[in-house]
Amino acid sequence: MTRAPGPGSLAAAERVMERCDRLGAISGSPDLLERVHLSAEHRRANDLVASWMTEAGLSTWQDAGGNQCGRIESSEPGLPALLLGSHLDTVRDAGRYDGMLGVLLAVEVAARFAGRGAELPFALEVVGFTDEEGTRFGNALLGSHALAGTFDPDWWDLADRDGVTLREAFTRFGLDPARIGHAARRPESLVGYLETHIEQGPHLEDADRPLAVVTSIAGARRFELTMTGVAGHAGGTPYDRRHDALVGASELVVEVEALARASGVIGTVGRLQAFPGGINVIPGRVEFSLDLRAATDHERDRALAEITGRAHGICERRGLRFESREIYRADATPCAPWLQDAIASGIRQIVDEEPPALWSRAGHDGMTVSAVTDVAMMFVRCGRGGISHHPDEIVDVHDVALALDAFEAATVEVAERVRAEPGRLGAA
Amino acid sequence: MTRAPGPGSLAAAERVMERCDRLGAISGSPDLLERVHLSAEHRRANDLVASWMTEAGLSTWQDAGGNQCGRIESSEPGLPALLLGSHLDTVRDAGRYDGMLGVLLAVEVAARFAGRGAELPFALEVVGFTDEEGTRFGNALLGSHALAGTFDPDWWDLADRDGVTLREAFTRFGLDPARIGHAARRPESLVGYLETHIEQGPHLEDADRPLAVVTSIAGARRFELTMTGVAGHAGGTPYDRRHDALVGASELVVEVEALARASGVIGTVGRLQAFPGGINVIPGRVEFSLDLRAATDHERDRALAEITGRAHGICERRGLRFESREIYRADATPCAPWLQDAIASGIRQIVDEEPPALWSRAGHDGMTVSAVTDVAMMFVRCGRGGISHHPDEIVDVHDVALALDAFEAATVEVAERVRAEPGRLGAA
Repeated sequence: MTRAPGPGSLAAAERVMERCDRLGAISGSPDLLERVHLSAEHRRANDLVASWMTEAGLSTWQDAGGNQCGRIESSEPGLPALLLGSHLDTVRDAGRYDGMLGVLLAVEVAARFAGRGAELPFALEVVGFTDEEGTRFGNALLGSHALAGTFDPDWWDLADRDGVTLREAFTRFGLDPARIGHAARRPESLVGYLETHIEQGPHLEDADRPLAVVTSIAGARRFELTMTGVAGHAGGTPYDRRHDALVGASELVVEVEALARASGVIGTVGRLQAFPGGINVIPGRVEFSLDLRAATDHERDRALAEITGRAHGICERRGLRFESREIYRADATPCAPWLQDAIASGIRQIVDEEPPALWSRAGHDGMTVSAVTDVAMMFVRCGRGGISHHPDEIVDVHDVALALDAFEAATVEVAERVRAEPGRLGAA
Repeated sequence: MTRAPGPGSLAAAERVMERCDRLGAISGSPDLLERVHLSAEHRRANDLVASWMTEAGLSTWQDAGGNQCGRIESSEPGLPALLLGSHLDTVRDAGRYDGMLGVLLAVEVAARFAGRGAELPFALEVVGFTDEEGTRFGNALLGSHALAGTFDPDWWDLADRDGVTLREAFTRFGLDPARIGHAARRPESLVGYLETHIEQGPHLEDADRPLAVVTSIAGARRFELTMTGVAGHAGGTPYDRRHDALVGASELVVEVEALARASGVIGTVGRLQAFPGGINVIPGRVEFSLDLRAATDHERDRALAEITGRAHGICERRGLRFESREIYRADATPCAPWLQDAIASGIRQIVDEEPPALWSRAGHDGMTVSAVTDVAMMFVRCGRGGISHHPDEIVDVHDVALALDAFEAATVEVAERVRAEPGRLGAA
């Protein structure tokens, strides 16, 4: 049974919603929300969030990677920090909650500790990451890569649609490429990273539950597939002599779905085209794609092996050739069990129920941050079937209030675990 | 048991093969064979064939549609004519036998009757049609449409790749668009039309038989199909909420093949593309094509109803929308039973076996000519799995000799049937 949020929490949640609206109005386009890395809107959003951080009692700075940061010290200044945050950039034609909600909830939680930071055995930091989405330069997570110290210098030559390189944009923004290393945190300076994010899926809505603990952030593997047969005249070639690449590829598309449904893995063929594409010509070649995600790399790779086996079976039976080229691979990021525990406890205190445990089908900053510290996430229910990356994205203010209380409680739970096991301080 | 062809027939077959080579050298391209309607090569091929017709004892003319004609009178000049022929134009990168073989066999048969035309109760004509393939202006069978009197004046505005209209090309070739009606034959001037053509398929090769009688020329119906679902993020949308247009279309592609294999109909999806085509986006729309052929319109249309029913079933189950737009329809042309009989008798006399009966999966001039007179066809085995529309197209000289003898015998059989039933003279 879910408790009703207290009046103070509802007021804070309303403030979060109103701030999401204000951030949602900072856009590079008059008709839709788009706020990309190193744009004028990036600067305005950072400045606005910094003002709210200051108001909440945090000391603020923009780091050398363009992330907006704020900090509350513990009784002893300079202790390792628990990071709370999410991202401030958006996709094109975005909703107002993906990323922003997590940053603004973190600001509210920090505000609650601002007067009592000394109670915590660590510093508390809020991070508003830039470029989680990768909308401008293609390569996502540039902000969290800077923080994690995993920024690849090759990326400086990435160019946006107008040919502006990341290096040029970085300089024009007022940042110094040579100083990006200053954004990198040392593992021993951190306790962990907690992020609240909208679910971007329908599971919580379907289950009628407001909050979930995230078990892992799915990795993905992406492939360009080709099946090659023999093109021929649709009239002259009887079935026994056909090597129709499209029928073979179609069989595989159907099998990918069946296998994924049965195994809990997500497999999607998003791109498919038959060649030569004549209306009376048997397709001699099909080019298609495969996107595979799962809670664990093991499940994902087992599904891949199964799909590959079926592809070879289809091709053997039909006299086709199968080729597969991996074009992207990100392994799954497991959420640290002790931080999952803290989040689950925090939710339990507020919602009075065992929270659902979900794996994140989408990528998040935690994937990158996990290179330097333990990470965990909490999901907030979103409505309309979980629509996201779309202006229809929506959350309920009551759920936001519960999320705020649970996120605060989770922070206290982290503090208790650190006190019980002081080695957690900067032990990544 | 197939009789070996006599030495005279083998010599004539060798001449046919050598003439196919000579015609095959008349091309608009130095590296491949392409001879299109109203080109300089069209003119050269007509002239060369006319010289062979003259040599064979025929009177010759090019008709008002650009077809090359030759004629032998019976004892009484001006009697209705039995037409023998095929086409002289080619696709791009063509073989040397598709069309040409049938014209040159007809010339040889006419040569055999040249000295004894008086024995026949009808005149004998040879036609080398132009533009059976439609390579230049897209709309095929322009030559036989002129002969059948079914030429549509709208076609004058058809343009080739260079923007030259059919009207302009016709005039430059030395023909007069205003006079095209002069090519039209009256039904009462004709006895029937017999065509010999390479099979363009592997059935005779597989059955180890040299010749077949054709039962009908398949019609085709062609459709542009669309399945529409809902695009969505590959990560965020669980299977129960997906409306994946590509999985639906793939199911239909697989079902089209299964249904066609089971029913003897030919169904081919030659074109298919998924939209929007993002590697991590569930396809919201698929555009694809369907080409359906069968021996009879009834079988074809029954298969179409079955496929359409299955498409609707798939779409209902998956929450998709199905649309189908017919873009081409040609009904099947049954070969006239009495002419099929004559051809079967002709083959039987030469090959000493009951000939296989095949339906033509490809279109032929007879489809058009059937508007003015009865038509029938004989197929000659081609090798290499029946490859056609390709330089590897091949026939065996022994089969050509048998075809020549059988085609002559079939002509005599037609004469006998006309004598037995004089009403056949111009009774279409």
